[in-house]
Amino acid sequence: MTIENISQAKVAGGWHKQYTHRSSTLNCDMRFAIFLPPNVSKSSPVPVLYWLSGLTCTDENFMQKAGAFQRAAELGIAIVAPDTSPRGDEVADDEGYDLGQGAGFYLNATQAPWSQHYHMYDYVTQELPALIEANFPVSSIKSISGHSMGGHGALTIGLKNADSYRSISAFSPISNPMQAPWGQKAFQAYLGSDFETWKQYDASELLKQAQAKLPILVDQGDADNFLVEQLKPEALQAAAKAHDSDVEVRIQPGYDHSYYFISSFIGEHLEFHAAYLNQ
Amino acid sequence: MTIENISQAKVAGGWHKQYTHRSSTLNCDMRFAIFLPPNVSKSSPVPVLYWLSGLTCTDENFMQKAGAFQRAAELGIAIVAPDTSPRGDEVADDEGYDLGQGAGFYLNATQAPWSQHYHMYDYVTQELPALIEANFPVSSIKSISGHSMGGHGALTIGLKNADSYRSISAFSPISNPMQAPWGQKAFQAYLGSDFETWKQYDASELLKQAQAKLPILVDQGDADNFLVEQLKPEALQAAAKAHDSDVEVRIQPGYDHSYYFISSFIGEHLEFHAAYLNQ
Repeated sequence: MTIENISQAKVAGGWHKQYTHRSSTLNCDMRFAIFLPPNVSKSSPVPVLYWLSGLTCTDENFMQKAGAFQRAAELGIAIVAPDTSPRGDEVADDEGYDLGQGAGFYLNATQAPWSQHYHMYDYVTQELPALIEANFPVSSIKSISGHSMGGHGALTIGLKNADSYRSISAFSPISNPMQAPWGQKAFQAYLGSDFETWKQYDASELLKQAQAKLPILVDQGDADNFLVEQLKPEALQAAAKAHDSDVEVRIQPGYDHSYYFISSFIGEHLEFHAAYLNQ
Repeated sequence: MTIENISQAKVAGGWHKQYTHRSSTLNCDMRFAIFLPPNVSKSSPVPVLYWLSGLTCTDENFMQKAGAFQRAAELGIAIVAPDTSPRGDEVADDEGYDLGQGAGFYLNATQAPWSQHYHMYDYVTQELPALIEANFPVSSIKSISGHSMGGHGALTIGLKNADSYRSISAFSPISNPMQAPWGQKAFQAYLGSDFETWKQYDASELLKQAQAKLPILVDQGDADNFLVEQLKPEALQAAAKAHDSDVEVRIQPGYDHSYYFISSFIGEHLEFHAAYLNQ
């Protein structure tokens, strides 16, 4: 598990660093970024928040635009941001921005040509945490968050791996992808037409089945252009209510789908996660 | 003075908005961005911090990457970011990233072909504040800050217009452009070869002549790749010491030239300016 450092910048007293590595899960070279707060060492490891980004993003969007580091430094939390899909000339792609490279949907594809590389679910839940814990002064205590497609990823991965994560949060998640055009297009291509398989990657469906009850915080702007057609937080709220789950969905008046929205509430999300990561 | 709104996003309880307008000073269409803190109105106007960006930047770099809005919202300060040069197909340009479009150096060019459009000094000191004060619920109380080429701009504009600004700050400014390759290339092209003219756009030279003594805060990372050859904060420090000026130059260990550095200290700069803007 060799990783190669390709950039580093001091920020908020800690460090932002980017690495490349060969992913055996994805069968391609991948890039990720990590924020390490000040004063970390192998003898005083810190917990990790995994951040999953949305359609068209890379590891860079959150790190450059979320304004998260000052608060993460104060709270003593590392942040890891993977890319949003496998990458490279040899990796299947699509002309649409919402399928293929930049649109991995954090699942394991079963259909050709996608099944050769698109195993982002295994990458985020297995290979990446192993790599991070082997190479950085972090503990195995972790939480997960994300935006839009990455909010879908955080919710589904957290709900399916409640033993591995302390808490889940999301901004503007695709909450019920089986009922939304983005999700239907991606699931049909990556998973085929079996709706039972789709349910395994739909947060609102998974919430109905969830055994363990992780704390979940969701923020959604009511001026988000994608709200009605694609995001459907009401499905998540209904499933949470029916299942008596610990899900707080906050509708934030006036906010849209952008990183300006994320930057406005990322501090509160970090504090939410810190309460579980540092307990 | 018609301005056209082209984007808006709620952030930190306030608003980020972009506008285009026809600039009579620059003879071209220009774009700028403004952050308005919460609860502003014509009956309770707020002061303005003008932010000048560096080489290759537009109005967007600071607004997307500096992480300034939460603190600016708390302090009740609007922030205005102009573009870094005149723009458009009809505007003279150069193949280098450090001359022409994206590299206006906040001066009034006297040499062809640049003199037709490159009047960023007049734009920032005259046309833009008039436009802002006519169209937004802000007062005429203002301070100025910037990064790299924009740090040079903030220092020179502030020093030459001490009656118009309350305070000046800069990140990694080109402190003595007459003695640095970036400045020499730009000044030769825009101003010709008269060194007396150059001195009117060199912060270290202007500091020697300054009558009024505005408070000045400068942050400079010691891991900045451009530090020795291009930035020369020691010239600014020497001029400040000889002139007994109110200049604090802080060398920040480990930090580079990027927005990760700016985001680490922008909160302190906002607090510095607020002490003068809100007094």
